[in-house]
Amino acid sequence: MEEVEKGDLRIGWARDHMPVLLEATRGMVEEKSLEKWRIGMAMHVEAKTAVLALRLREAGAQVALTSCNPLTTDDTVVAALRERHGLESLARRGQSRKEYYESLQGVLEARPNIIVDDGGDLTYLLHTERRELLDEVRGGSEETTTGVMRLRVMEREGALRFPVIDVNDARMKYLFDNRYGTGQSALDGIMTATNLLLAGKHFTVAGYGWCGRGIALRARGMGAHVKVTEVDPVRAVEARLDGFEVMPMKEAARTSDFVVTATGVKDVLRKEHLKVLKDGCVLANAGHFDVEISRKDLEALSSSRRRVREHVEEYLLEGGRRVYLLGEGRLINLVAGQGHPVEIMDTSFALQGLSVLHLTKHHSKMKSQVYAVPGEVDEEVARIRLQTLGVKIDSMTEDQRAYISSWKAGT
Amino acid sequence: MEEVEKGDLRIGWARDHMPVLLEATRGMVEEKSLEKWRIGMAMHVEAKTAVLALRLREAGAQVALTSCNPLTTDDTVVAALRERHGLESLARRGQSRKEYYESLQGVLEARPNIIVDDGGDLTYLLHTERRELLDEVRGGSEETTTGVMRLRVMEREGALRFPVIDVNDARMKYLFDNRYGTGQSALDGIMTATNLLLAGKHFTVAGYGWCGRGIALRARGMGAHVKVTEVDPVRAVEARLDGFEVMPMKEAARTSDFVVTATGVKDVLRKEHLKVLKDGCVLANAGHFDVEISRKDLEALSSSRRRVREHVEEYLLEGGRRVYLLGEGRLINLVAGQGHPVEIMDTSFALQGLSVLHLTKHHSKMKSQVYAVPGEVDEEVARIRLQTLGVKIDSMTEDQRAYISSWKAGT
Amino acid sequence: MEEVEKGDLRIGWARDHMPVLLEATRGMVEEKSLEKWRIGMAMHVEAKTAVLALRLREAGAQVALTSCNPLTTDDTVVAALRERHGLESLARRGQSRKEYYESLQGVLEARPNIIVDDGGDLTYLLHTERRELLDEVRGGSEETTTGVMRLRVMEREGALRFPVIDVNDARMKYLFDNRYGTGQSALDGIMTATNLLLAGKHFTVAGYGWCGRGIALRARGMGAHVKVTEVDPVRAVEARLDGFEVMPMKEAARTSDFVVTATGVKDVLRKEHLKVLKDGCVLANAGHFDVEISRKDLEALSSSRRRVREHVEEYLLEGGRRVYLLGEGRLINLVAGQGHPVEIMDTSFALQGLSVLHLTKHHSKMKSQVYAVPGEVDEEVARIRLQTLGVKIDSMTEDQRAYISSWKAGT
Amino acid sequence: MEEVEKGDLRIGWARDHMPVLLEATRGMVEEKSLEKWRIGMAMHVEAKTAVLALRLREAGAQVALTSCNPLTTDDTVVAALRERHGLESLARRGQSRKEYYESLQGVLEARPNIIVDDGGDLTYLLHTERRELLDEVRGGSEETTTGVMRLRVMEREGALRFPVIDVNDARMKYLFDNRYGTGQSALDGIMTATNLLLAGKHFTVAGYGWCGRGIALRARGMGAHVKVTEVDPVRAVEARLDGFEVMPMKEAARTSDFVVTATGVKDVLRKEHLKVLKDGCVLANAGHFDVEISRKDLEALSSSRRRVREHVEEYLLEGGRRVYLLGEGRLINLVAGQGHPVEIMDTSFALQGLSVLHLTKHHSKMKSQVYAVPGEVDEEVARIRLQTLGVKIDSMTEDQRAYISSWKAGT
Repeated sequence: MEEVEKGDLRIGWARDHMPVLLEATRGMVEEKSLEKWRIGMAMHVEAKTAVLALRLREAGAQVALTSCNPLTTDDTVVAALRERHGLESLARRGQSRKEYYESLQGVLEARPNIIVDDGGDLTYLLHTERRELLDEVRGGSEETTTGVMRLRVMEREGALRFPVIDVNDARMKYLFDNRYGTGQSALDGIMTATNLLLAGKHFTVAGYGWCGRGIALRARGMGAHVKVTEVDPVRAVEARLDGFEVMPMKEAARTSDFVVTATGVKDVLRKEHLKVLKDGCVLANAGHFDVEISRKDLEALSSSRRRVREHVEEYLLEGGRRVYLLGEGRLINLVAGQGHPVEIMDTSFALQGLSVLHLTKHHSKMKSQVYAVPGEVDEEVARIRLQTLGVKIDSMTEDQRAYISSWKAGT
Repeated sequence: MEEVEKGDLRIGWARDHMPVLLEATRGMVEEKSLEKWRIGMAMHVEAKTAVLALRLREAGAQVALTSCNPLTTDDTVVAALRERHGLESLARRGQSRKEYYESLQGVLEARPNIIVDDGGDLTYLLHTERRELLDEVRGGSEETTTGVMRLRVMEREGALRFPVIDVNDARMKYLFDNRYGTGQSALDGIMTATNLLLAGKHFTVAGYGWCGRGIALRARGMGAHVKVTEVDPVRAVEARLDGFEVMPMKEAARTSDFVVTATGVKDVLRKEHLKVLKDGCVLANAGHFDVEISRKDLEALSSSRRRVREHVEEYLLEGGRRVYLLGEGRLINLVAGQGHPVEIMDTSFALQGLSVLHLTKHHSKMKSQVYAVPGEVDEEVARIRLQTLGVKIDSMTEDQRAYISSWKAGT
Repeated sequence: MEEVEKGDLRIGWARDHMPVLLEATRGMVEEKSLEKWRIGMAMHVEAKTAVLALRLREAGAQVALTSCNPLTTDDTVVAALRERHGLESLARRGQSRKEYYESLQGVLEARPNIIVDDGGDLTYLLHTERRELLDEVRGGSEETTTGVMRLRVMEREGALRFPVIDVNDARMKYLFDNRYGTGQSALDGIMTATNLLLAGKHFTVAGYGWCGRGIALRARGMGAHVKVTEVDPVRAVEARLDGFEVMPMKEAARTSDFVVTATGVKDVLRKEHLKVLKDGCVLANAGHFDVEISRKDLEALSSSRRRVREHVEEYLLEGGRRVYLLGEGRLINLVAGQGHPVEIMDTSFALQGLSVLHLTKHHSKMKSQVYAVPGEVDEEVARIRLQTLGVKIDSMTEDQRAYISSWKAGT
Repeated sequence: MEEVEKGDLRIGWARDHMPVLLEATRGMVEEKSLEKWRIGMAMHVEAKTAVLALRLREAGAQVALTSCNPLTTDDTVVAALRERHGLESLARRGQSRKEYYESLQGVLEARPNIIVDDGGDLTYLLHTERRELLDEVRGGSEETTTGVMRLRVMEREGALRFPVIDVNDARMKYLFDNRYGTGQSALDGIMTATNLLLAGKHFTVAGYGWCGRGIALRARGMGAHVKVTEVDPVRAVEARLDGFEVMPMKEAARTSDFVVTATGVKDVLRKEHLKVLKDGCVLANAGHFDVEISRKDLEALSSSRRRVREHVEEYLLEGGRRVYLLGEGRLINLVAGQGHPVEIMDTSFALQGLSVLHLTKHHSKMKSQVYAVPGEVDEEVARIRLQTLGVKIDSMTEDQRAYISSWKAGT
């Protein structure tokens, strides 16, 4: 199948499976609510993102789009966006760091007044090299934990220059996207990249945040014996009582067949761990940046390195130990897979759409800080999701409402 | 075995398995930190609670204790407390409502200046009939969701008259006590009460809060086919993606072999549901009060009622349907079981002990509102728990801390 | 509640939940098919067994009943059988070995011509001390793996003197009774006996036969971290790929919080393992005989022993390690619990009922060997079970039958 | 990456992860045990199969290889086998039926005296069109359930003309390959083909044999709500007690988001089911032949059909319902994925290697019937697998052996 056709089918397939986004933004599209707004997006450019971008355009916006990661672009989607939908994007799979930042610059050239960011690189650029553009920016939204962490630091330091809606911490986002989206797609990516068995394998997940627990859960669901490493003691107790083994990475590394990082922190796997890694261990990263597994240390410690399969590089370590790094340590679910399942992004992007709308309406009263997604938006998206699932739920009676509103009803 | 002996063994067994409480309160005991403090406790009087009460006494406090529920007292523990430990308690299993409130009054007679409450009845009594005692109360702590809900209403209405620490919402509490404590003990209670099989059964959990999800998880762990009812759309989506079926109670009732309530709300099972309940359905409650399954409606709709087993009453409904109510609709895990596993209460009560200490130290600077357990207390308890489990975890390097403290490190 | 009343309610409750047995034996009862037959039963005398015994009597048989284990009798059921149903039994909870064998002798005094055995003690007695009674025995049925193992040896050695139907290896038996019956009831017994938490605990199951895998599955279902020990390499691989850790007992003992045996073999936990057992470890047995955990070795190695709870004895081992033996090492699910769930025994006893009928009809053509339950009986019981569950299934079309009956239909 | 290189890397990767096959056949290779033997193989031609074929050649055999399915060949592997290993194969992905049979004929041209078959097409051809070659065939081995079903019919009808070893029913085969191999690879294939979410989806598995239960287990492990259809009542009860819903396909079809067939029977999804299929339902097959989902009926009932994604065809049915057929109804794990995980085939092919050796040694004493893999071969492979996993297990003591060899040790 030809590239453009392939990409367009993927976009069509995604759109067909994104009823929540379509329904949540129906009003916006009917009313062209985003007319005159210029939206700059830096997100993984693949089918689901294309649907969001096109939908924002349907609502009247001008959209400039590039990727938020050098290795996660689906080139067929870029081609289809250009050829079939007239939406140009500089994104390309396998960009150099330089090309990557040039693409971000390209988006900024469109002088966006709304930013839709994923990981914070676009926001960073605006606040450093391209401060002259800040004045036109009315607000932004951020998709992922890592980006929110950066924004929180900016906020604390007083560096942030426009209001940002933290889509990541909406309940309809992190409960599903971070956990079940990452869980399924990371496992899918690992299976596709390796064709190795998971059942009975020792599988270590670094980090027991929402992403980490999704991966841990799904790895167990495939029959693996899962271990967790953590730095937070409460999360460590939780992982243990969730039925996982908890131990320091140095100990986990000795016995693991797979190690997957999802911490948002750098050098989670570094020299001291690489030195004791079990022969044959497969390493993958599901965190936003490619810093969690230290490639510098891998290279320093290895006597040779060769590609042994698509998406798999073998490093030969001391003692003849072979270690396999998947997808250069970049987001495994997008590098070796197709990213989160469509329905997951459907929900997340419904939140994005409504957050953009919220910014266009309320930016003048908003400060340069990080805002939560309004509770009613969260609930609204949940209600549409239930509808699309054909699920009905109970509602409280008057009597019940009265009951929980009183402190006098006891034994 | 004789009552006193049985109760004392239970207390001893519990104490032997509560190293976190002992360690967390070691300093308090060594320094007699609670000397001159009078603590009034209303908690399920069973072995683990006895360990907490005795420990507070070891730290110097005068302790007055009674139950927070008419049907959850372990009489052997009451006997052992009296005979072996000189701690008198009016609690008794199977109290009438009148006797129950007399016992609470008994605790108040001791003129407590710290309140340790579970469900809020003691706090309620202080704020209504016994307001003359309020002046001496320096603060309180609350153990359970229902009590916190009542306190939040009091706070909103400006009715609350002393600071209360919300132990329930500490991470080391709700993640484990509400979820895994309730999960295991509710299932244990149901199995003990019925000797029925769970595998393959249709098992409905009303409410997908922390308690509800613990029950749902454990019921699935025993092989049941689990359904969830909810009123919150986000939780409903979560339950569905967690792999449970979600539907209104009216639909669930038609096909369920078991229905267990854990909502904190009254009349979750009422006429409209009872009318369609499947023949043979077993009803149990895991919420704090016995209001979730309407016994009034059950009685109104049934032509006869008889005890068919210890803890099981059969109601004969229209159409010859037999429905089995466990433990009179009171907390099934305490009525038919032994309450939460010891190690769970170990953690929860370590939080209680430290919260009481915190109140004695800081009450003068605290307002009449609901306070969270300080984050460092939560972490401290987690660290002790990890220690007792023999689990070591990683800690962040300087480099890593720097990394997450900067917004400038990106792609 | 009075003993007799309590026992009778239990029998009634069980009967109400045993529709498969009632339906499968309906014809037998209507036709009094067992008239003139004397049945000698040695089974755990508790509510479900009472239902079977009474049902066989309804079908016309004379029934003599005692227990197959000194510590598993429900005395309330014995009382109710005697007082309410006129069925005398010598069974009593807590018999000495001598009393136990006297009770078996009591059953033989009734000169049974059909034997319903569980574990093989009755059969053993007949083939050793009471050979003079063999002539009248037309056949037997055996309920459990251990009994079948003994019968197979007898068959191999030519010692067996009447035909025996191996109920244990019917699919409708071992898939459910051994696996899910044992799984649920053993866990229930352990929770009742200890009130300890399972989530996050290291839980070792010795033996990965049908019972062992049931226990392993349910322990995992309660959140435990489960290890398996095995002697069969294929089963060991299976346990590993089922997601459990597999290791020798000597290694498992060092780190386990619980060890449960289900092997059918003696001395599974013996000196070498007891010497390294982790402090605080709980030991329980789910195998038929109390030989799996060597009490002799426990006593030899311990400096003291005391009862610390009902069903729990503490042994003090070298190094101050405390080890807790549940229920004297006898079947934990019956000693500390109520045995298998009712519905499980419903199915197993339907097979027993039909097997007895089969023996009465076909014994003259049967040899002194071990017979499988006829496939059609297995299927018949399955069909009734589906009916009681309200489950419908597909059936093959003519076309489909033709398809699988031909070797010529290929690619 | 170039085709040949890609294929060769895949073979190398597979070989590196197949230590059991290498170890089990080490002696054969050292002794060139297969010298002078001509082996005709019809198996899915992909990396793992290539390793087996090359290994048999290393042991001295002449090997002729083609595929057992028109749509499962990995063309890169065919290229690598030809260019790098000098092993010619006519297999090609996407063969017509005619080409497919020509390739089988090609293998027969090599006049094999040992047949390694998968599904039985090669065996069929030998017993029909190419009977003249039968005289040279000393024996065969069969890999899969479907092939064994055909062989059993041939055996019953007296049509079989050489001894065949039924590798499929070795414990080390079906417990792992059929269950966990199919489970993981089918799910992987479905995720790759659709990028759809599994969590919370209604997922129906037709057939609860070893393949079906693997799929059901893994679908549940990914968070799906799994239903099972069966024709065997015992299996139906088992599926239900394993926690799945059981119902006729006609009912399942109405509510399913995914239906996956694994029955070995034709027309499992036919007109009556297609008429009520839920809009948006995804259909896939994991059975050997593409007959389980009736494409004939799909075409008859649909008004249009179009490719909407690689491996996905959309059929438009009455009422505007869209139904998605994956991989033309052929083995989804090979069509859209990479087949079973390497380690799974490692074990299965170790059994194949040893079965071929067994045939060469014992064929003269074997009859034209279906033989089980000898128990000691099964155990040997298990022991090597444990070794490669670094797992040690217990072994019985003399005392224990004596215990289970006696029928006299009882209570």
